[in-house]
Amino acid sequence: MKKGELLYEGKAKKIYATDQEDILFVEYKDSATAFNGEKKAEIAGKGSLNNQISSFIFTKMKEELDLPTHFIQQVSDHEQLIKRVKIIPLEVVVRNVSAGSMAKRLGIEEGIPLEEPIIEFYLKDDELGDPLIIEDHIRFLKIASSEEMEQIKKMALKVNQFLISLFDSLNIRLIDFKLEFGKDPQGEILLADEISPDTCRLWEKETNRKLDKDVFRRNLGNLIDAYTEVLTRLGGKTHV
Amino acid sequence: MKKGELLYEGKAKKIYATDQEDILFVEYKDSATAFNGEKKAEIAGKGSLNNQISSFIFTKMKEELDLPTHFIQQVSDHEQLIKRVKIIPLEVVVRNVSAGSMAKRLGIEEGIPLEEPIIEFYLKDDELGDPLIIEDHIRFLKIASSEEMEQIKKMALKVNQFLISLFDSLNIRLIDFKLEFGKDPQGEILLADEISPDTCRLWEKETNRKLDKDVFRRNLGNLIDAYTEVLTRLGGKTHV
Repeated sequence: MKKGELLYEGKAKKIYATDQEDILFVEYKDSATAFNGEKKAEIAGKGSLNNQISSFIFTKMKEELDLPTHFIQQVSDHEQLIKRVKIIPLEVVVRNVSAGSMAKRLGIEEGIPLEEPIIEFYLKDDELGDPLIIEDHIRFLKIASSEEMEQIKKMALKVNQFLISLFDSLNIRLIDFKLEFGKDPQGEILLADEISPDTCRLWEKETNRKLDKDVFRRNLGNLIDAYTEVLTRLGGKTHV
Repeated sequence: MKKGELLYEGKAKKIYATDQEDILFVEYKDSATAFNGEKKAEIAGKGSLNNQISSFIFTKMKEELDLPTHFIQQVSDHEQLIKRVKIIPLEVVVRNVSAGSMAKRLGIEEGIPLEEPIIEFYLKDDELGDPLIIEDHIRFLKIASSEEMEQIKKMALKVNQFLISLFDSLNIRLIDFKLEFGKDPQGEILLADEISPDTCRLWEKETNRKLDKDVFRRNLGNLIDAYTEVLTRLGGKTHV
């Protein structure tokens, strides 16, 4: 498949057309950003690690889960092919343990296990700072219907169950993660974007060592070491 | 009923004990605050106007609505008696038209009518800046159960219908308002706090003239004139 015109460049990925209308080429970048772009760095090897980790997870989900996703296949260390979807402008956050913005918002400690997973919706809008919104807001903005939100939540919980047990087997606790969804031309909702240490909080079980983007956000050490640890545990070879 | 010990002083009210365990004395203050206390002023007559307006509305609700409230009776221009309740730490905001923080959060204009009323919950916590929260957060914090939230929303919508038609008859549009609820010793949920131009957005129908605290927040003129206009239309005599 040939890499065509650059269609979009985001903070972490470039999207290219291919010679097939409904298939896109994704190139993972080495850029790290946090706090809505306020903190930035180039970290050689990060794009490749995220692409390999996300490709591994989406491939395994394709084999084991009944869940439509945009993923087609990995094509190189830092590239993959996906189905073209229209992204639904929501960041869907699933939480198993208190951390990050939820802990800050509610004035609670990080690390408190939740009795039930909590799903939060954030409006994907950099200018507005990706604010937390409620389902009534989503309906009002006509971003998704009640039925679509139910479907998205169901899919998010399915991914959560899958990832909890995958990471648990690698001695890693899945604290929380962010998903994005898209619609294909037929209107079907597919899981989109990536699943990687950029989009998950992953804590090593015994030590609570952070194996995710908090290493960058909070200056906790070497991000490449942490992401490599995740890929290695997943059984991938590191081609950094 | 005798005014006893001062139990609590908030931004807009003082609460006193009485000689009866389950009854409290409320004194409305002349303080105006906005933006979580960042903007402050003393405005002579404001407490009295709010007490009279809120007393009028709660009295009318008592006559016309099947809705348990904490209100007992007005006792002077700036004082009223209420039942003692334990306040549920939520600010329950009902919106009929986009304005204020919702417009800002979603990046939309003010003044857009909503197809359905929207109910938002904010955590009542000055230190945290009264953040928007979702029902999952409320359950996690054990502030209210799902059943209690359903009951609160039902009560809030009932108040909304009542206030829309009350203000409509006075040529005023009810844009949005904030309610608080409390629990009595038997665990029954009662409508508490106040309903006044401090807690509602009220726009004059033809002119969109603001008859509420936005006059203070946004420096739109004389707050006493605006609040007096509301009380006069409600049919109250102004004892400012």
